Amino acid sequence: MSETPRLIGVGVGPGDPELLTLKAIRALREVDVVAHFAKAGNASQARAIAADHLRADVTELPLLYPVTTEIPKDAPAYCHRIAAFYESCAAAVAAHLDARRSVAVICEGDPLFYGSYMHLHVRLAARYRTEVIAGVTGMSGCWSAIGAPIAQGNDVFTVLPGSLAEDELARRLADADAAAVMKLGRNLPKVRRALERAGRIDRAMYVERGTMADAVVMRLADKPDDSAPYFAIVLVAGWECRP
Amino acid sequence: MSETPRLIGVGVGPGDPELLTLKAIRALREVDVVAHFAKAGNASQARAIAADHLRADVTELPLLYPVTTEIPKDAPAYCHRIAAFYESCAAAVAAHLDARRSVAVICEGDPLFYGSYMHLHVRLAARYRTEVIAGVTGMSGCWSAIGAPIAQGNDVFTVLPGSLAEDELARRLADADAAAVMKLGRNLPKVRRALERAGRIDRAMYVERGTMADAVVMRLADKPDDSAPYFAIVLVAGWECRP
Repeated sequence: MSETPRLIGVGVGPGDPELLTLKAIRALREVDVVAHFAKAGNASQARAIAADHLRADVTELPLLYPVTTEIPKDAPAYCHRIAAFYESCAAAVAAHLDARRSVAVICEGDPLFYGSYMHLHVRLAARYRTEVIAGVTGMSGCWSAIGAPIAQGNDVFTVLPGSLAEDELARRLADADAAAVMKLGRNLPKVRRALERAGRIDRAMYVERGTMADAVVMRLADKPDDSAPYFAIVLVAGWECRP
Repeated sequence: MSETPRLIGVGVGPGDPELLTLKAIRALREVDVVAHFAKAGNASQARAIAADHLRADVTELPLLYPVTTEIPKDAPAYCHRIAAFYESCAAAVAAHLDARRSVAVICEGDPLFYGSYMHLHVRLAARYRTEVIAGVTGMSGCWSAIGAPIAQGNDVFTVLPGSLAEDELARRLADADAAAVMKLGRNLPKVRRALERAGRIDRAMYVERGTMADAVVMRLADKPDDSAPYFAIVLVAGWECRP
């Protein structure tokens, strides 16, 4: 490409390939390199969503999270390992940009909303021409799939990582009109207790793979077990006083 | 159409027509009727965004908010007037569905996130086959346009209507890692004071028409006046402790 090479964070939406935007598809057509994060040994979910739009001659750059199961996540060694990983990813992307190749980093959901792309953005955006293409978030995909009117009018809507402490979750769930609790996984029993303490368990919906054909949807109160994938979500719809 | 007619809430995204999804475009191609909300005397912004994808032979159903400037917004008469308006909109949409015509209600941003479509959804979803197509929210469009990494890791992200009381805004802004304040308009001076009291004014970005060519973006602290359109937004990015 003869124009200034670009770093583009490309949101590919929550899972349904039809929730890609025209702008994301154009970016995938235009760039020289498509980068995607995944855990080592796993396929990239973002790549699976965007697969139909990757050019046959595009260069792919998989960015593979190191396996760190042997280190506790709150240990300094974990932080160092992860920071070193992001540095190496940024260097790999920068090498393409320096060689005048544009790079799209594809991301599930929206690139700047809890996404791995952000770690590249903060390291590279000051040095390279950078663009971010907003995507449909996972939470939008989920509340749309279940038809839950999430927030309206004067509602306060809060996004809570399930990794927060139980007291913190309970306090914030009681204080918001509507909420999405993300990063469930092994946090689900704690999230369930926090919802009970906040008096919100009856409105809580559990959603797994919300926009996919194999979606799992139920009232959290009806879910008989506490097993959940990390990317499952709990939604508490607001708008309790409707005109 | 011979199949069961559908009501479809279609998110058309934050403004840039390229942020339409493939699914939204397919819906616009398939339906018999396209409905859109606007203030009486104004063009529908959602229609402008989706204009290139409306079939020439599609039936349009404008849903025009009554002019209510003579009634205070907290008066019971206002609530009655607005509720009657939504009832009449639901009846107009239902008449098409009863005549076996599918209806897409196009909405800026995401249909179930503070959108007018929600008033039709709660009145009709139990009676008709209904589908909601998630869209890119206005706030995603804005933080992407300015390249602001809005929330990461354990961040709590809160959406606040600018119509809340100043004390409430200040308390919640101090209590969240990241925030989006919507519905600015004449609430801007109050929102500015609340951000100052919460110690967040220095991180606050003001964004108007974020994904459009004529976007206005600046630090709120640098904005010399307090005039703002209703759909402008203030963003406070989180992720203050980066690895």
